[in-house]
Amino acid sequence: MKDFESTSLRVRGGQLSLLDQTRLPHDEIWLECRSVADVIDHIRALRVRGAPQIANAAAAMLGCRAAAGDEAATLVRAAAALRDARPTAVNLMHAMDALTDTLQHAGHTAELIDQAVALIEADRACCDAIAAHGEPLIAPGDHVLTHCNTGSLATAGVGTAMGVIRRAHETGKQIRVWVDETRPLLQGGRLTAWECGKLGIPYRLIADNMAGSLMASGEVDVVIVGADRIAANGDFANKVGTYPLAVLARYHDIPFYVAAPRTTVDPACASGADIPIEQRDADEIRGAVTRDGFRRWSPADAAVHNPAFDVTPAHLVTGWILDSGAFRLDDIGQSALTAPDRGTASGG
Amino acid sequence: MKDFESTSLRVRGGQLSLLDQTRLPHDEIWLECRSVADVIDHIRALRVRGAPQIANAAAAMLGCRAAAGDEAATLVRAAAALRDARPTAVNLMHAMDALTDTLQHAGHTAELIDQAVALIEADRACCDAIAAHGEPLIAPGDHVLTHCNTGSLATAGVGTAMGVIRRAHETGKQIRVWVDETRPLLQGGRLTAWECGKLGIPYRLIADNMAGSLMASGEVDVVIVGADRIAANGDFANKVGTYPLAVLARYHDIPFYVAAPRTTVDPACASGADIPIEQRDADEIRGAVTRDGFRRWSPADAAVHNPAFDVTPAHLVTGWILDSGAFRLDDIGQSALTAPDRGTASGG
Repeated sequence: MKDFESTSLRVRGGQLSLLDQTRLPHDEIWLECRSVADVIDHIRALRVRGAPQIANAAAAMLGCRAAAGDEAATLVRAAAALRDARPTAVNLMHAMDALTDTLQHAGHTAELIDQAVALIEADRACCDAIAAHGEPLIAPGDHVLTHCNTGSLATAGVGTAMGVIRRAHETGKQIRVWVDETRPLLQGGRLTAWECGKLGIPYRLIADNMAGSLMASGEVDVVIVGADRIAANGDFANKVGTYPLAVLARYHDIPFYVAAPRTTVDPACASGADIPIEQRDADEIRGAVTRDGFRRWSPADAAVHNPAFDVTPAHLVTGWILDSGAFRLDDIGQSALTAPDRGTASGG
Repeated sequence: MKDFESTSLRVRGGQLSLLDQTRLPHDEIWLECRSVADVIDHIRALRVRGAPQIANAAAAMLGCRAAAGDEAATLVRAAAALRDARPTAVNLMHAMDALTDTLQHAGHTAELIDQAVALIEADRACCDAIAAHGEPLIAPGDHVLTHCNTGSLATAGVGTAMGVIRRAHETGKQIRVWVDETRPLLQGGRLTAWECGKLGIPYRLIADNMAGSLMASGEVDVVIVGADRIAANGDFANKVGTYPLAVLARYHDIPFYVAAPRTTVDPACASGADIPIEQRDADEIRGAVTRDGFRRWSPADAAVHNPAFDVTPAHLVTGWILDSGAFRLDDIGQSALTAPDRGTASGG
């Protein structure tokens, strides 16, 4: 398994290490993964998170074990165990199924190593393509508002919305970023703030309810967010709090973009109404996970409504930035989002 | 000083007690105030909060001391010390100035006791008038969304926006309340949730960024909030997060009301642009005050933007509910908000 280096996953001399995301932003602890069981444990404990990155970690571990000489039958069992570590992680399932298929048909492990590397490098390339298609949509000096965490902690590359922001920063556009803290799990306050600091991108952290007045005072030029699932008509689900940003952006005539891998588009979903919204644990609203663990501030018996996601309708979206190109509402009718490939960007 | 009983302030047998709001919602601790110094200490430590309630506590303490036989000169010194306890609290200043004036001109303390009682009862009556004007605007079965804390912890009575909600509940309208947690200081999550629970008002607590999707799915019938200052043209400043609610309410065609005492209207402010917005401490965004004190989750050096208030323009407001009546945008041009008295409500 050849060496690989990213913000939160690295392979050096056949040894996989993962950055412990439960300790961020306070401590940067790299976890050496000595066994498949270690990786399963880290996935379950959310020390590695982000759908693509979970799949990358599992694939990298299989590649390392193959390079260390594990038999094909052992690797097949390992892939099955890794696949079960997070039952709802579709990227993980796809990656493990593909690697198992290779093992069973090729029968030897050299091809598995190549394929594990290819999976991780494809994720990185996907981020690069999104960043390349999105970067032209950011103007020099723009104040960019983003939500949740969509960067190099969730992927093997630069990320999605955050990748666009990073690329705009690295090309010298002198941008500034407004980071929504993203209640209740505070991925903005914990992770995106850390990542911006790490990359030297000027940012300011805000409570989610401060985006409106910033827009009213002309301090937001563009909004860019990620997506958890995109319907065929362009509606999309993302971390709760995305939809009100889209409404506010429209009200203030501010461009609103969504950036995601093409694999996020679900042709089986005709519209946002088909996307189920998960209700999460009440304690997430009664308090928060702080540096010292979970702490509560609300009544212990407070009744709570805690949807993980919300749905933004396509008509509020200025553009969809995929690895296959940047698209506008007009493109959706021509099935641009679900097309197997599309090299040119019509948007922007 | 006659007995007085409210949610967070009571006088019994000449003894003032205050509910310690820094311990809410976790513990209900009544603080017996044995001296003027005790009250000053509680004001400074925010154990008593809410502009009207600070003034009520100070007035009640002066009344109790007068009833206990303190000399007029002692009481004048006490009023001056209380007045300085929170330099920016305009209600406190006005109350202490009025009581001092009485002492200096009347020369005896019986009138001071009467006036202290009158001040507190006027605050309670003001809340009742707001509730009476606002309650007809809430329909049976309404799902009402509110922000921050505007209830019986901040006033001697039922509160402002919360008073309207409470009155609607008590008249059997079978309402349900969405309580915005109100980052960063979490007055909704800490205090309004506690108060709704105490009053038996069905509620559910949400993160501020969840109001949008609730509105989109038809689960919010009306929004009602308080105000910190109302300009002559009807624009108003309130706890940050109010403005985006107003935009979202308009987008979803949901009535949006503001409830406040007439004294909140500042005729010297022509519009919202004249209202200064205080920037507060960065740590408020980097973490939160939990049951176990302040806990951080963001990078210690995270750059932060933390405005305490935002301004909602009059054109987004369906109605202004004051103790002098309920008003609509048409009334503003006729100086209805700043009129010294107006017995009839043209709104609603």
